[in-house]
Amino acid sequence: MSEIFLRPVGWVRGGRVAAEDDAWDAERAAIELDTGWLGAEALQGLDAFSHAEVLFQFDRLPESEVVLTARHPRGNQDWPKVGVFAQRGRNRPNRLGISVCRITGVEGTRLLVAGLDAIDGTPVLDIKPVMAEFLPRGELRQPDWSRELMADYW
Amino acid sequence: MSEIFLRPVGWVRGGRVAAEDDAWDAERAAIELDTGWLGAEALQGLDAFSHAEVLFQFDRLPESEVVLTARHPRGNQDWPKVGVFAQRGRNRPNRLGISVCRITGVEGTRLLVAGLDAIDGTPVLDIKPVMAEFLPRGELRQPDWSRELMADYW
Repeated sequence: MSEIFLRPVGWVRGGRVAAEDDAWDAERAAIELDTGWLGAEALQGLDAFSHAEVLFQFDRLPESEVVLTARHPRGNQDWPKVGVFAQRGRNRPNRLGISVCRITGVEGTRLLVAGLDAIDGTPVLDIKPVMAEFLPRGELRQPDWSRELMADYW
Repeated sequence: MSEIFLRPVGWVRGGRVAAEDDAWDAERAAIELDTGWLGAEALQGLDAFSHAEVLFQFDRLPESEVVLTARHPRGNQDWPKVGVFAQRGRNRPNRLGISVCRITGVEGTRLLVAGLDAIDGTPVLDIKPVMAEFLPRGELRQPDWSRELMADYW
């Protein structure tokens, strides 16, 4: 078994303190870099972008709650049972989240963001600028259940 | 220092064998799940989505080549020096890549994809379905240099 060791590049500070679904778009938070190895230079030029893609770990979710078998998203029986890689829920292998948020400022080693769906204290593993060229190429297709699930998310 | 231990969910098989920039869109490859802990059920329902978001590690890049200071993207002096989190290049903290590709099929524990910019053998850490609701919300803004850099990428 090949394990991969990563080190947080920073942590989410502020915003929501409990992992509750929905209405995330109004949240304001900062990502504070780990100044033990990263300086303000790492964020240089990020303010020229409107959005950042943030990779983080749902560290408050106990590993025992990770589910590898197919399940109804959010336990809703009206939606089909789907595999863990066909949904974006928290309790997944490696407990990783990837989310796009708006950049509201850069202050030294702090990146200020809006609409990040990660709670206070969450370890961040990477930050990338959003470029239009990295959005889906070609027509996007997704099942109806996913649209219903996302209706009140932001 | 808080380390995070992850386990690959699978590996890229096929496609390009060397990490060369540009013209990635024509590549065809498979992501083979690690059947030591994941079964076909994990991919159930993913074929209802047109695109997948794949998180992987640039494991062939020596850690000594990771750069934490600001630099000119691709060494091009015509573009500004920007920090590592304001670009998407490989030699970054944790050496992680996030990319959206097209789903061309699901065969048991193999996810068939097109346009994935990761080379043969790359460890995959997560696979998520692309939902329109997770794309950037609000107007997208990015600097000119990033559009020039991406001109021939796909």
